[in-house]
Amino acid sequence: LSITLAVDAMGGDGAPDIVVKGVALALQSHLDVNVILYGDSARLIPLLTAEGIVAPQVTIQHTIEAIPGDMKPSAALRNRSSSMRLAIEAVAEGKADAVISAGNTGAYMALAKIILKTLPGIDRPAIARPIPTMRGESVMLDLGANIECTADNLAQFALMGAVFAKKILNLSSPSVGLLNVGEEHPKGNAIVKETHQFLTENKWVDNFHGFIEGDQILAGVVDVVVTDGFTGNVALKTAEGTYALIKNFLDQGFRSSIFAKIGYLFSKPMLGKIGQKLDPRHYNGAPFLGLNGIAVKSHGGTDAYGFQSALKVAIDMAGSKVIQHIRQELERHPANIQTGFESKLMQ
Amino acid sequence: LSITLAVDAMGGDGAPDIVVKGVALALQSHLDVNVILYGDSARLIPLLTAEGIVAPQVTIQHTIEAIPGDMKPSAALRNRSSSMRLAIEAVAEGKADAVISAGNTGAYMALAKIILKTLPGIDRPAIARPIPTMRGESVMLDLGANIECTADNLAQFALMGAVFAKKILNLSSPSVGLLNVGEEHPKGNAIVKETHQFLTENKWVDNFHGFIEGDQILAGVVDVVVTDGFTGNVALKTAEGTYALIKNFLDQGFRSSIFAKIGYLFSKPMLGKIGQKLDPRHYNGAPFLGLNGIAVKSHGGTDAYGFQSALKVAIDMAGSKVIQHIRQELERHPANIQTGFESKLMQ
Repeated sequence: LSITLAVDAMGGDGAPDIVVKGVALALQSHLDVNVILYGDSARLIPLLTAEGIVAPQVTIQHTIEAIPGDMKPSAALRNRSSSMRLAIEAVAEGKADAVISAGNTGAYMALAKIILKTLPGIDRPAIARPIPTMRGESVMLDLGANIECTADNLAQFALMGAVFAKKILNLSSPSVGLLNVGEEHPKGNAIVKETHQFLTENKWVDNFHGFIEGDQILAGVVDVVVTDGFTGNVALKTAEGTYALIKNFLDQGFRSSIFAKIGYLFSKPMLGKIGQKLDPRHYNGAPFLGLNGIAVKSHGGTDAYGFQSALKVAIDMAGSKVIQHIRQELERHPANIQTGFESKLMQ
Repeated sequence: LSITLAVDAMGGDGAPDIVVKGVALALQSHLDVNVILYGDSARLIPLLTAEGIVAPQVTIQHTIEAIPGDMKPSAALRNRSSSMRLAIEAVAEGKADAVISAGNTGAYMALAKIILKTLPGIDRPAIARPIPTMRGESVMLDLGANIECTADNLAQFALMGAVFAKKILNLSSPSVGLLNVGEEHPKGNAIVKETHQFLTENKWVDNFHGFIEGDQILAGVVDVVVTDGFTGNVALKTAEGTYALIKNFLDQGFRSSIFAKIGYLFSKPMLGKIGQKLDPRHYNGAPFLGLNGIAVKSHGGTDAYGFQSALKVAIDMAGSKVIQHIRQELERHPANIQTGFESKLMQ
């Protein structure tokens, strides 16, 4: 059973070069995957030739229209023949199993929502991403799609995150935690408290852990970290900034004396392994969960290796039929919603 | 001019032992500081004797009442003779210049607010803390006192943070950033946008940088990071968790092979320096800014070295008269508030 990916070849800082190189890397280990590249064929053909990539495994759908990184979503929606739009439409029309873009996040989310539509029972899609932890990998959502969230939104994120953890991280009974603050009992805002109560009373997720705090995210206390897009975005970027700070201090430190330089030579293989384990490129590829189709966002500033990771997330999601499983979970659960909890799912 | 500290000797996991040891450490480099310890003299006297600390530099105000770590603030308020309360009252009564406690945060904040009162023009105090960055040190607030904040609150935090950075971090014109998400223009919730507009239009802080994102906190892009207590608490704890994750990976890695072990021996002095620079104990001591008096919170689980850091924050704040400077800034600014911005400062 082969998988077809629709790839926006014109999105992101290094497009189309890193896109083509990323596709070449991904295809080395996925002979069963076909790729449709949406973009300027005059620029794509020489790149494909250089990489030794040939049809029919990779084909080009030519368009010269591309969405700039700073274009407002409303303007992006008006462009009918952008590479981003055409790639998303390929999924909606069944020509591809997943779409991947490193382009403008706001435009991509807006287009994906309009073209692919949200799943029945989902009010708003969330941006999710696997993250490295002390115990392995977890998934965190929302990472910035929804600045303000209701308890409904958060409960839906919990359900989708649990399915993602089961199918993509291969965890049999993923635990779900709700990000909150402080040690004292009645802490937190009204929305996280309401979500906590709902997830405790209704068995939307099999394994609801309760609240977690910021320092427990990367400790891997839970497999699924649920939060609103504002907090999630700040938390993930703070973690990235902390990693960058420590890496910078170590890079400087290992150059600071002859002893440290010798120490570096002996430690290099071990440091390489840690670097790989925490390499942001390895975790590149954030699916928009909640859509009626697979759409994966690559970081705009990534390289070919990072873009390959995003392609692999899409391949994994298509192969394990994550969307169908989310749909099934949603169908299984609306009946559980009762008494007092105001849910848009009932409408 | 000597400084007197009122110390809650019974608060925190290691009290009173680590409190007395922390006081001993701090006094080694601060001969001009006097300390009043509030707590059980039967337990404190042997500890003081062991440390060779004598009156009159350190005196004891005896009480056997202590606030447990899990007591609700409302219950803590009813206890009239707790070590925490008596220490705060010493500041209100002018017997001490600052109070320090490693006890129950919620109780400490509630008691400090009631006893010391907020400064005129401040609606709610914030928990602040210096943080290590790529460029040196910054200060971040609020770290958890206020789960939900108005634009008024955030503007007040900005003003207080700038004064703290000027007087305690010794920066001549500290830049102030407002924590937000995403790269696109109109992002963020209504409150951060309103605060942004206010700080841009009214010159509450001399050097308003605008929005920053999570990864810019530890990069040191700004000297003062302003955010609500929910986001600030999650961000700071996420940074701590990231540090713990990387430290754990490095500790394991340096033990993983004979080469890595040799590498560790050569790198040890350099790693020690980085460890010191990022040591959470070094940044222990979070002032409650906005009160009419100096109250510093120590982490409950810290050791003597960490408690010493909290004492030093209090000493620095008393010595540089931060509270008076905040009061002056507030008096200088209310007149700037005009047109449309609904501020409780006007009431």
